[in-house]
Amino acid sequence: MPNQRFFVYFDFLSAKNMYSRQQLIDQIRQKKSFLCIGLDTDPEKIPDCLKGLKNPVLEFNRQIIDATHDLCIAYKPNTAFYECYGAKGWQNLIDTCNYIPADIFKIADAKRGDLGNTGQMYAKAFFDREISGMGFDAVTVAPYMGSDSVMPFLAYQNKWAILLALTSNESHADFQLSGGNQHKLFEQVLQKSQRWGTNEQLMYVIGATRGEAFSAVRKLVPDHFLLVPGVGTQGGSLADVCKYGMNTDCGLIVNSSRAIIYASTEKDFAEAARAEALKVQQEMERELFKSGFLK
Amino acid sequence: MPNQRFFVYFDFLSAKNMYSRQQLIDQIRQKKSFLCIGLDTDPEKIPDCLKGLKNPVLEFNRQIIDATHDLCIAYKPNTAFYECYGAKGWQNLIDTCNYIPADIFKIADAKRGDLGNTGQMYAKAFFDREISGMGFDAVTVAPYMGSDSVMPFLAYQNKWAILLALTSNESHADFQLSGGNQHKLFEQVLQKSQRWGTNEQLMYVIGATRGEAFSAVRKLVPDHFLLVPGVGTQGGSLADVCKYGMNTDCGLIVNSSRAIIYASTEKDFAEAARAEALKVQQEMERELFKSGFLK
Repeated sequence: MPNQRFFVYFDFLSAKNMYSRQQLIDQIRQKKSFLCIGLDTDPEKIPDCLKGLKNPVLEFNRQIIDATHDLCIAYKPNTAFYECYGAKGWQNLIDTCNYIPADIFKIADAKRGDLGNTGQMYAKAFFDREISGMGFDAVTVAPYMGSDSVMPFLAYQNKWAILLALTSNESHADFQLSGGNQHKLFEQVLQKSQRWGTNEQLMYVIGATRGEAFSAVRKLVPDHFLLVPGVGTQGGSLADVCKYGMNTDCGLIVNSSRAIIYASTEKDFAEAARAEALKVQQEMERELFKSGFLK
Repeated sequence: MPNQRFFVYFDFLSAKNMYSRQQLIDQIRQKKSFLCIGLDTDPEKIPDCLKGLKNPVLEFNRQIIDATHDLCIAYKPNTAFYECYGAKGWQNLIDTCNYIPADIFKIADAKRGDLGNTGQMYAKAFFDREISGMGFDAVTVAPYMGSDSVMPFLAYQNKWAILLALTSNESHADFQLSGGNQHKLFEQVLQKSQRWGTNEQLMYVIGATRGEAFSAVRKLVPDHFLLVPGVGTQGGSLADVCKYGMNTDCGLIVNSSRAIIYASTEKDFAEAARAEALKVQQEMERELFKSGFLK
């Protein structure tokens, strides 16, 4: 009965190709971790021992994923590191996405955003595995163009748009803090976008350089998950982020990229990455108990 | 003397891989046109007669370019339409970029933007042909993250960052018009960004749905080139855009995508695209004489 097998196959694909808020919470509880590992893999920083291989980037990512997948709940390749190397780089992004175990939340850190028709193409690119080869669960989106550029991502059930709100880079203040004390741009993004979708499909990027900023954010978005870059190399404090940013569902996905994936540049790079991830996971476990999320 | 040949080859590449403001102005004068054709090639909209070919998208783009390159000064593929189709799509973007004649301004409508280290990767992806395979002259950039996300593009000599300022989509008002009458966000973008680079490396996207908006824009950026989407399918009036937006160097690159590339869905698609482009070029020629740019 080939037709039936065909049907089952597609059903399986579409079932795998979804990620609910509850799955995320369950994973945090099970792994006692809310760590996201940024797969910002720069061919120039890959250990020499891999450089003779046919595809060092993909091999590096595989070994990092193999060594850390029980300690983290999400992986986040930044697309810039892949598209920089042409079609081969793009294929590495696809293959990396597909290598990540199905229970782990897959974020394309792409910072895309374009109007309706074109936005739909971006959503297909990252969400629709049958067309693009990639089935990410979430994409980071730049909100400058407004709702038109976000809605195409929200049209997918149990997929996520993660809006840039308050980023961790030095020049975030150029525009994100403009608008006066009452209506800073990032606050407008947090407020307006809640009309576009629910906390089952929207998250926000909130940079972690100052933990106190999370108090203001949590007044506006008490229930949403926040994706937090900037802990680790960029210098944010995990304790502060948790103190001001955690909610009853944890509500945080904290990213670390370079501090983990480049923990060693020698043959032991995967073990060193695991050791670094374990340190962060253990700190996260303590915070999850302290907050009462774990008992 | 293989070494010398090697050197000459790279010198040739880097010389080709630049595009000055003066080259743009010369091209406008010579072609009596400031038309940019958007290569937003959707495989589903390609004429049936191409669908049996090995690579319909690339063949479509080639035939459109062959039929229109003497009527336009720029081509602008929107990256969403390519990355949607995986590594093969990305290769089509590369091959399309490389097929565009060297005298024509090549814009990657990518709406990228990320902080320093990652931003550099995006700049390499679109500007550095030796690494990525693509040598675009310009990239559209979303300004939400501030100067950090724009500077990596400005680090390339005679390459361009085209900042989103006032876009033509319906929801542009969500954030771009916020900030009160004196300091709307898009005005802040126009003002602040002028400190980051010169009008030899920065342009702005200004949507053309209301020509009068160009008066306000020209008060802030009298000399910069503006990339204007939204004429044609999106409904802006070319006469209005010219009346309020043109400066003594022309200062406009006006884009049309669907109205030209999908002028016909039959075998005559390339001729129909040419006929449509010719209509726009002739209207532009009249405007260039009217303004005194052509005499």
